[in-house]
Amino acid sequence: MLKKIFAGHIWHNLKKSKPLIYNITNYVTVNDCANILLAVGGSPIMSDAVEEAEDLVKICDGLNINIGTLNNNSIKCMLTAGQKANELGKFIIFDAVGVGASEFRKNTAKLLMENIKFDVIKGNFSEIAVLFDNSNKTRGVDANENDEIDRQKLDSIVKFALNMADKLNSIIVITGKIDIIANKKNAYCIFNGNEMMSKVTGTGCQLSSLIAAVACVNKNFLLEAVASAVCIMGISGEIAYKKLKFDSGNASYRNYIIDAVYNFNVRDFEEFANYKFY
Amino acid sequence: MLKKIFAGHIWHNLKKSKPLIYNITNYVTVNDCANILLAVGGSPIMSDAVEEAEDLVKICDGLNINIGTLNNNSIKCMLTAGQKANELGKFIIFDAVGVGASEFRKNTAKLLMENIKFDVIKGNFSEIAVLFDNSNKTRGVDANENDEIDRQKLDSIVKFALNMADKLNSIIVITGKIDIIANKKNAYCIFNGNEMMSKVTGTGCQLSSLIAAVACVNKNFLLEAVASAVCIMGISGEIAYKKLKFDSGNASYRNYIIDAVYNFNVRDFEEFANYKFY
Amino acid sequence: MLKKIFAGHIWHNLKKSKPLIYNITNYVTVNDCANILLAVGGSPIMSDAVEEAEDLVKICDGLNINIGTLNNNSIKCMLTAGQKANELGKFIIFDAVGVGASEFRKNTAKLLMENIKFDVIKGNFSEIAVLFDNSNKTRGVDANENDEIDRQKLDSIVKFALNMADKLNSIIVITGKIDIIANKKNAYCIFNGNEMMSKVTGTGCQLSSLIAAVACVNKNFLLEAVASAVCIMGISGEIAYKKLKFDSGNASYRNYIIDAVYNFNVRDFEEFANYKFY
Repeated sequence: MLKKIFAGHIWHNLKKSKPLIYNITNYVTVNDCANILLAVGGSPIMSDAVEEAEDLVKICDGLNINIGTLNNNSIKCMLTAGQKANELGKFIIFDAVGVGASEFRKNTAKLLMENIKFDVIKGNFSEIAVLFDNSNKTRGVDANENDEIDRQKLDSIVKFALNMADKLNSIIVITGKIDIIANKKNAYCIFNGNEMMSKVTGTGCQLSSLIAAVACVNKNFLLEAVASAVCIMGISGEIAYKKLKFDSGNASYRNYIIDAVYNFNVRDFEEFANYKFY
Repeated sequence: MLKKIFAGHIWHNLKKSKPLIYNITNYVTVNDCANILLAVGGSPIMSDAVEEAEDLVKICDGLNINIGTLNNNSIKCMLTAGQKANELGKFIIFDAVGVGASEFRKNTAKLLMENIKFDVIKGNFSEIAVLFDNSNKTRGVDANENDEIDRQKLDSIVKFALNMADKLNSIIVITGKIDIIANKKNAYCIFNGNEMMSKVTGTGCQLSSLIAAVACVNKNFLLEAVASAVCIMGISGEIAYKKLKFDSGNASYRNYIIDAVYNFNVRDFEEFANYKFY
Repeated sequence: MLKKIFAGHIWHNLKKSKPLIYNITNYVTVNDCANILLAVGGSPIMSDAVEEAEDLVKICDGLNINIGTLNNNSIKCMLTAGQKANELGKFIIFDAVGVGASEFRKNTAKLLMENIKFDVIKGNFSEIAVLFDNSNKTRGVDANENDEIDRQKLDSIVKFALNMADKLNSIIVITGKIDIIANKKNAYCIFNGNEMMSKVTGTGCQLSSLIAAVACVNKNFLLEAVASAVCIMGISGEIAYKKLKFDSGNASYRNYIIDAVYNFNVRDFEEFANYKFY
C-alpha cells in the first residue's frame, strides 16, 4: 500500500510543489540540511531569530525544529514559530536530538511539547523514551546499545511506538537499524539504510528536513508520506554505499548520500523499498 | 576590455596580495565561504562578535557582510565593523540574502545601508528590488520566477541596475541566469554559470566572499574586478559541471565548484569568459 | 618509542573506548570536527550553551575548547565546562585559534587559562607566542611567515616549547610545517603532513578534536598520545594528497583527509610516521 501511494501521489506532489522548509536547527549540520532539501527539489530557509519567526512561518510550507544545539534565543524562536505554524495549520516536525544528554534539552523538549502540536516527533529509541517518561536518566546524545532495534524485539517496540503516538498525539518516528513510523493506529517498519550512515554526522538531521519536505505537501497521506521519506533516505544510503571504494570514508559517503537523494526517482523506490505494515 | 584588464592586473593583484577577508556571515554556508577564499589564494576570518569587530577590520583587507542568518549581536557587529571599515577606507560588500523574507531582514538592511557606505551591494532581482523600493511586499528567500533574467528583458534590467547604482551610490550586482554588474555609468552582463549552481546552498554567499577578495585588491578597477569575480565563479561552475557523472548530485557539484576555483587560471578566463559591456 | 607505544596501547585504547568528545567550538568548522571524530571511532557532542555545560561534561570523556568564533554566552559555557572538567578530572584541550587577531580573543584566552587547567594547549607559533608573552602585538588569524618552522630554527623552537610547557603547566602543541609537542621535559617533532592542508579550513580544528579523542583514553601516555594524534592527522593528509587528480582542489582534499582518518590503521602509522624525540 505504501508502495502504490508513494509511486503515485507522494513523489508527484513533492516535485510539483517545491516546498519551502523553514529550519530552526543546530549549527553543526545545517549546511547538509539545506543541501538535502535542494537535492529533493525543495527550498530551505534557515534562521533562529525570533524577530522573523512569524514572517518565515507565513511564507513556508513546513517547519523543522531540531534541538541539536540550543540557546535561549533559539528556544524563543522555536516557541514563536511553532505556535504560529499551529495557528496557520502548517506542518511541523520535532527532532529531539540528544534530549537525554542534559536537563536543559529535556526541559526545552517539554516546553516545546506543551506549547506546540507537532505533526511528527522523531528520535532514536533512547530519545523517544526520554520524551515519554520524562525521567531523570541522563543518556548520551548518540544511540546506545539499547537503541539497536532488531527483529526480535521489533514487536514490542512497535507497540511502544503506537502507544507513544497515541499519548503524544503525533506521528512517532523511531530511528535505528530498523526505523519505525507510527500513528496511534498503524505503523510502518523500514528495513532500508546502511549502518555506516551513523558514521556521518547529521544524517538524522537531514532526514528530518526531508520528512518535512515530503510530508508538508502530502497531508492527506501523512503516515505514508513520512514513511516514504524515511525509505528515500535509507535507500539513498544504500545506493551511496555501493559507490564507496576501498579507501573511501565517511566524508565521501556524506556527499554520495546527498547525491543519491538528488538523483532519486520512483523506480529506486519500487526496486529497493523494504518495509512492513503493521 | 574586461578581458584584458583581468588577464593582466586583476588576477596578478589577487595572487600577490593574498587578501584577508573578514566575513560576518550566516552559519549555514560559512564553511564554504572560508574554503572558497582559501581556494582563490585569500585568507578568511569569520566572526560575528562586536567585541572584536574593530580589531578585525584593522587587520583585514576587505569586509563581507551577509544577512543570511541574523541576530541582535551580529547586527551590532555588522554596524560597528562597517563603520570602522568606512573610516579606514576598506572595501565592503553587502549580500542582501533573503531580504524580502521578513520585516526583520528588511529593517536590518535599511539600518545597514543608512549607516554604512557599501562598495558593492549584491542580491537577486527580488532582493535588490526590495532594497530599492523598501516596499512591504514579502517574498521568499530564493529567486522566484520574476528573478529569471532572460535576454529579452535584459535591457530593462540593466537600466534598473544603473539606476540602482546611482541611487544607492554603490556597484550593484544582480545575480540570476544572467548576472548584471553596474555602477551608475556602465554595466557588465555575465552569461557564465550553470543553473545547477542554484541547487547548491551558498554559491551566492561564496560569490560574495570571492568578490571581496578580488575587488579589495583592485580598487582602481572596481567595476571590472567585481565583474571578473562573477565570471570566475560562473566559469568554475561550468568547469565543475563537466566533471559530473550520471549519478553525481549537488553535494559532489559543491566540491567540484570549489575545486575549480582552486585550479582557476587566466587561461580559463580567456577561453570561457562570456560577457557584454553596456 | 612513540612508534611502539602507539602501535600497541594508544590505538587499541582509542578503538575500544569510542570516547565521547564535548566540543565548544566555532561555527565555521564544527561539522568537520564532528565527522573526524566519527571517522576515528569517537562520538561528538557540540554545544555552546552554558545551561547544559555541566551535564555534558559529566557524560563526556574529553573536552575540546576552541575560540575560533566567540560570543559572551560561549565564553561562559567554556568557563563552566572547563572548571567542571577539572573537578571531575576529565581531559581538556584548548585551541587558541586566532588569539592574536583581537584583544577580545586575547582576553578570553587569558581568562580561560587563569581559571582552567588545560592538559593540552595548541596553536601555531604566533598564537602560542601571544599566550606566552601576553603582548599587545595583534597578528592575523593565520600562520604568518614567522610561523614557518624549518629545520634550521627547530632547536630554538623546541626549547621555547619546553619552556612554555613548564610555564603553562600543560602539554604544548605548536603546529606548522613541523609540529612540536612538548611537556616540560621532552618533545616530539613531527614531520608528517602536507602544506596543502593549510588550504582547507579547519584542519587545525579537526586536529584538536582528534587529539582529544586519542589523548582522553590514554592518560598514562599523554605526551605520546598527543604526538600520535598529530602524526595520524599528518599521515592522513599525506595519504589524501596522493589521491588528488590534476583538477582536484581543496574541497576534494578536505573530504579525502577525513576519509583517510576513517581508514587509518596501525600499519599506516608504522610505515609513514616521521618524527624525532627530544
